[in-house]
Amino acid sequence: MPPRIYADNAATTRLSEKALEAMLPYFREEFGNPSAIHSYGVEAKKALEDARRRTAKVLGALSTEIFFTSGGTESDNWAIRGVAEQKGGKGGHIVSSRAEHNAVLKTLEKLEGEGFETTYLEPDRLGRISPEDLERSIRPDTILISLMTANNVTGTIQNVKELARVASLRRVAFHTDAVQAAGHVPVNCRDLGVDLLSVSAHKFHGPKGVGVLYAKIPRLPPPLLTGGGQERGGRSGTENVPGAVGLATALEEAAERTREAPGALEALRDRLISGILEIEGAALTGDPVNRLPGHASFVFEGIGHSARLVNSLNEAGICASSGSACSASSQEASHVLLSMGYSPREALGSLRLTLSHENTMEEAEFIIEKVRESALRHRTRPAT
Amino acid sequence: MPPRIYADNAATTRLSEKALEAMLPYFREEFGNPSAIHSYGVEAKKALEDARRRTAKVLGALSTEIFFTSGGTESDNWAIRGVAEQKGGKGGHIVSSRAEHNAVLKTLEKLEGEGFETTYLEPDRLGRISPEDLERSIRPDTILISLMTANNVTGTIQNVKELARVASLRRVAFHTDAVQAAGHVPVNCRDLGVDLLSVSAHKFHGPKGVGVLYAKIPRLPPPLLTGGGQERGGRSGTENVPGAVGLATALEEAAERTREAPGALEALRDRLISGILEIEGAALTGDPVNRLPGHASFVFEGIGHSARLVNSLNEAGICASSGSACSASSQEASHVLLSMGYSPREALGSLRLTLSHENTMEEAEFIIEKVRESALRHRTRPAT
Repeated sequence: MPPRIYADNAATTRLSEKALEAMLPYFREEFGNPSAIHSYGVEAKKALEDARRRTAKVLGALSTEIFFTSGGTESDNWAIRGVAEQKGGKGGHIVSSRAEHNAVLKTLEKLEGEGFETTYLEPDRLGRISPEDLERSIRPDTILISLMTANNVTGTIQNVKELARVASLRRVAFHTDAVQAAGHVPVNCRDLGVDLLSVSAHKFHGPKGVGVLYAKIPRLPPPLLTGGGQERGGRSGTENVPGAVGLATALEEAAERTREAPGALEALRDRLISGILEIEGAALTGDPVNRLPGHASFVFEGIGHSARLVNSLNEAGICASSGSACSASSQEASHVLLSMGYSPREALGSLRLTLSHENTMEEAEFIIEKVRESALRHRTRPAT
Repeated sequence: MPPRIYADNAATTRLSEKALEAMLPYFREEFGNPSAIHSYGVEAKKALEDARRRTAKVLGALSTEIFFTSGGTESDNWAIRGVAEQKGGKGGHIVSSRAEHNAVLKTLEKLEGEGFETTYLEPDRLGRISPEDLERSIRPDTILISLMTANNVTGTIQNVKELARVASLRRVAFHTDAVQAAGHVPVNCRDLGVDLLSVSAHKFHGPKGVGVLYAKIPRLPPPLLTGGGQERGGRSGTENVPGAVGLATALEEAAERTREAPGALEALRDRLISGILEIEGAALTGDPVNRLPGHASFVFEGIGHSARLVNSLNEAGICASSGSACSASSQEASHVLLSMGYSPREALGSLRLTLSHENTMEEAEFIIEKVRESALRHRTRPAT
């Protein structure tokens, strides 16, 4: 096997060594249950609250607004189902968009079966949601707006601050899935003006199986998981202390990286984009300007299903994706690209390359070369 | 600080070094997302499915019956809310007991608010549920029975096989919270005849933040967490690969330990029990015969709130509990002891010492000595 180049950081990232080192003592020596009153419990509780305080600081929140969960999907489920329950649980109107992650869309689908009504805004060709469209979609019975901060398939960053302002003026709760954004671009909850915000650690070199729901005081929804009353009654279950410590450490590290080497990742991404756009039939998807720093996404005309491209790249040692991780093995076109006006045939030809600080300019050049070779090969031998 | 003796293994356990070693490669090198189709994804998927296969083998289940969750609380919530939803979500009758963990009780409480009716069986003085009582409690509209395998406060092991047989004959779904039992006594799903069974890794020297729901085919309840459709559609969210690997490794290790040194932990426990029962005013709680191998629990007459005892022991370097971990800092008497017929005053004097294979006979002797000292001290200086 040739040396592998990992370019699928929107799917998941390598755990930071610093985060792992920070977690190890809570696996080995201070493994206590934070609810216990003896010394092991006290040390575990200290670590948990320290992680909460550090996480809050990076996210521009109060410690009491940070709730640790098992990941982005749980945070999204909790936020959406929680607000629905808070508002009586029997019905009401929710606004979202067709470009959201399935953790949002499938949860809304379930609520539709329980009597809730939904309006899905259509993003434009670049994946942007218009604040005017949002404004127009709000009804007297609208209880929640859920719009993501940055898109996993296209890397497009929304103007969440403006969208949240519309919600706030109309006094509707605003949730944003910031799973792709947190740790990649500055995410300041207070500044964004959102009520609820979801984060997942493994998207920014933290551990899998841990996330955050930010809930602005006093917007905390009723619990999704009921039981022992951990997380100040918000989320039951023995706290994942090493997970929380790893999340906080990786988040701080990511924020530092952006401060200390601003533009470094963007430069890699931009080289990748300009190199690939020279290939015949390649086009960028998503917003060329307001996009995630490591996110390069394309559609290729005339290559059929891009899974073939991804497989060719994998043989060359390059780990890429045809779209979102969740639907990587699916034969269907990305619902995100379809929502932006791409035809099913166009959307099937999508390729996503997502870089991290671990990638190099040499790797970017190698990726460009291999994408060119693979695209040409698949174009001369069309899909049967 | 004196060397610490950890005797609160029912609250949580130290992560096994072997489990941690097994997890490390999935933090560091093979950190892929199991849904990705490239080599990192393939390796992660292999590890996940291997962990599932190994877990299934120890639990006497098929791989396709094992679903990884974020822990015992999520498994309990999923099982109970899932069956409620499966049966129409509008109402029906559920049988449980007053001695269950709050992950079950609080979830049932929420369902009561949604139109479900509940019957709570009363355990006897030893914490046992009578199959005859269960039989009598079943109504034509009973949709679910949830009774735990072993109790966290008293260590009492139920005859789940017999209870599940009653449920099966009446064609009612049977869920058991086996969070305290799995990894401590043989838990074979097929043999027990249960439909749904909850497991938590950190109770048997696995990592925090990961658990299992066993769901007998075709009893899988609809998802609690909706989204990307991981876990064959059962539980969405990027799979916690290191967590699953850690769970499987720790579970295998625990099963081996029981096979290779049968009775070792029981001997420690029995010495602790006999030593402590020599102290004036001490009485064992729970079943003296059918109890968890490392579990010793008592009530002390005339010492007031046992938190004072726990604090004294902590000063002597011994980490114990006044009851369950979740309510450790609570001022209330254990609902479990109350359900068994103890008075609030009796129940407030409860002490739980839960051992693991890491404890020694010398530690047991030291604990007995310190419990004696502390109990005497607190008896001579009654609570104000």
